[in-house]
Amino acid sequence: MAGKEPVIITDKEEMRKWTRTMRSKNHTIGFVPTMGYLHDGHLSLVQEAQKHTDLIVVSIYVNPGQFSPNEDLSTYPSDFQGDIQKLKSVANGVDVVFHPKNLYDYGNSEMGLIRSAENEGLKVVSCVEDKGMGHETWVRVENLEKGLCGKSRPVFFRGVATIVTKLFNIVEPDVAVFGKKDYQQWRIIQRMVRDLDFGIKVIGSDIVREHDGLAMSSRNVKLSPADRQKALSISRALSKAKVESEKGQVNCGELINSAIQTIDEAGGRVDYAEIVEQESLEPVETIKRPVVFCVAAWFGKVRLVDNMEINI
Amino acid sequence: MAGKEPVIITDKEEMRKWTRTMRSKNHTIGFVPTMGYLHDGHLSLVQEAQKHTDLIVVSIYVNPGQFSPNEDLSTYPSDFQGDIQKLKSVANGVDVVFHPKNLYDYGNSEMGLIRSAENEGLKVVSCVEDKGMGHETWVRVENLEKGLCGKSRPVFFRGVATIVTKLFNIVEPDVAVFGKKDYQQWRIIQRMVRDLDFGIKVIGSDIVREHDGLAMSSRNVKLSPADRQKALSISRALSKAKVESEKGQVNCGELINSAIQTIDEAGGRVDYAEIVEQESLEPVETIKRPVVFCVAAWFGKVRLVDNMEINI
Repeated sequence: MAGKEPVIITDKEEMRKWTRTMRSKNHTIGFVPTMGYLHDGHLSLVQEAQKHTDLIVVSIYVNPGQFSPNEDLSTYPSDFQGDIQKLKSVANGVDVVFHPKNLYDYGNSEMGLIRSAENEGLKVVSCVEDKGMGHETWVRVENLEKGLCGKSRPVFFRGVATIVTKLFNIVEPDVAVFGKKDYQQWRIIQRMVRDLDFGIKVIGSDIVREHDGLAMSSRNVKLSPADRQKALSISRALSKAKVESEKGQVNCGELINSAIQTIDEAGGRVDYAEIVEQESLEPVETIKRPVVFCVAAWFGKVRLVDNMEINI
Repeated sequence: MAGKEPVIITDKEEMRKWTRTMRSKNHTIGFVPTMGYLHDGHLSLVQEAQKHTDLIVVSIYVNPGQFSPNEDLSTYPSDFQGDIQKLKSVANGVDVVFHPKNLYDYGNSEMGLIRSAENEGLKVVSCVEDKGMGHETWVRVENLEKGLCGKSRPVFFRGVATIVTKLFNIVEPDVAVFGKKDYQQWRIIQRMVRDLDFGIKVIGSDIVREHDGLAMSSRNVKLSPADRQKALSISRALSKAKVESEKGQVNCGELINSAIQTIDEAGGRVDYAEIVEQESLEPVETIKRPVVFCVAAWFGKVRLVDNMEINI
C-alpha cells in the first residue's frame, strides 16, 4: 500500500486538466494545501481527505502573499524531497503533488506588470506587492480577518484567502481539508467558501501534537532546544484552562490570566490569549456555549499558535 | 430557430449540477451575467457567447452588493417575463436562465448572520451590509477599481467582482462575455480572472448603440424625453474626439475639454471625462498608443456611462 509515487505537476493548466480528466471519469478529488516542510499534522490531513474522496492532491507552495516584508518568508523551512518521501509513507499515498514555482507571476501577459511604486498608497502590503509583482486582486473575509492573528499580521489572512481561492480555481477539488491548528484560518476559509459559493466541501481536521503536547508546526524546527522546552507552556496552559472550565470556571478573564501567567513564567512572550466563539471568533466574557481558547506566543524569534476547543 | 424556451433555474446547487452534467457530456458553457431589463446590447452578448460554446447560460440578478444605500437599487427596472421573451427572440436562443432570489442569504447556515452594527466601523458599505446580511467576503481589484467610476461609486466594483466570483463558482462556465459599455468593469473582471486563476475565458463585446448613437443601457428607460435628447451629447462628444484624434489631435486635455463642453452645453452634468490606457486605465496626457475615452454624466437623476476606444 505505502510507497505510491505521486505525480508532480508544476503547471497550473496541467493541474486543472488533470482534475477535469479525472472528474469526467467519475473520480472525486480531495485537496490538502500546504506550504511544505511536512510533518505528521499534514499527513493526518491527507488521511482525513482520503475518507472523503478517492483521489488526493497535495499542494506545496510557500505563499508570498501572506507574508509581510518584515516576516519570515525567506527563512521559511523547505525540504521538497523529504516531503515527497513523507507523502509516500502514508497508506494509499497521494495522487498528485502540485508544486508551482510562482503563482503571482503572469509572465508576458498582455496586461503587464504594475510597478510596486503604484502600490505605495496602500495600507496593506505583502511580499507580492513589495516585489512589484503585477497581481492586484485580493479576497478578504472582512470581519473574521480582524481579530486574533489578524491584529499582529495585517496581510496574513488576505493572503491566505487569496491563495486558497487561486488554488481552488486551479485544482478544482470536491473536498478541501484544513488543520484546526490554524483555527482562525480554517474558519475564514469555511466562511469564504460559503460567501463566494465555491462548490467545495471544507473539512477541519484535529490538531496533531508531539508526545509532549506541542502542536505540530513547520516552524517548530526553528526553535532552539531551550525554547522548544519553554514552548510546551502553551499546550500546558490550554489544557489547564480546559480542565478548569470543565470543573466549572466560566470566567474567561481568570482563565486567560492564568494561561498568560503559565506562558510568561516559562519564558514565552504572549502575543494574544483570547477565548472566542467558535464560529464568529468574537471574544466572550463568560463561557455559556462552545468556545475556543486561542493563543499566539513568541519563543525566541519563533511565533507559535495553538488553540483548544472547550465544548461545554 | 428562434423561440427556444430556456430552462429557468433559481437554485444555485441545481445550476451547478446542470453545468457539471452538461460538461460530462462534452458540452461547453458560455455565460452572460446580467441584471435583467434586457436590451439589444445584452442580446448581442448572447450572440457573442454563441460563437464560443454550444450551450448558453444567462443570469438575471440585480446585485445589492454593488449598490450603496443611497443609490438606485430599489428603482432599478425589471421585467422578467419580457426578458424571457427577448432571449427567445435570439436565433438559437439560450439554454438556461439562472434567476436566483438572493445570493447573499445563507439561510439557517450554522454560521449565522452578522448584525449590521458590527459593520459600522467599515468604510465601504453596500446594500448587503446595510440590510444586515451575513455576507462578509469581498473580492477587490485594488488598483483598477480606484479610478473612473470607482471615485464616485466606492462600493461598486467590490460588489461587481464579488458577485461575478460567486456566479462563476455557481455556473462554472468555460467562457463569459461582458459588454465593453462598462469598460472598467470588463477590464476589472479580466484582471480578476487572471489574478485568481479562474479557468474561464473572458470576452469583451462591443457597445451596441441606438440608431441615434445613445449607448444601450437598462437605465435609458428612466430618462425623460428631454433628457434622452440631451444624453445624445455623450456619444456625440466621444465621436468628435475620436475624429479629432484621428486627424492628429493627441493632446488629451484639449480633447477632454471639448467633450465636457459638448455635454455641458447640452444640459448634462459630467461626473468624469478621462482618456486612459486601455489595460491599466491610467490617465494619459498625450495619445501615443491605444487609449479609451471614458465618460460618465448625469441627465436629470440618471447617471449614464459611455466610452470609445481610440486605436491610433
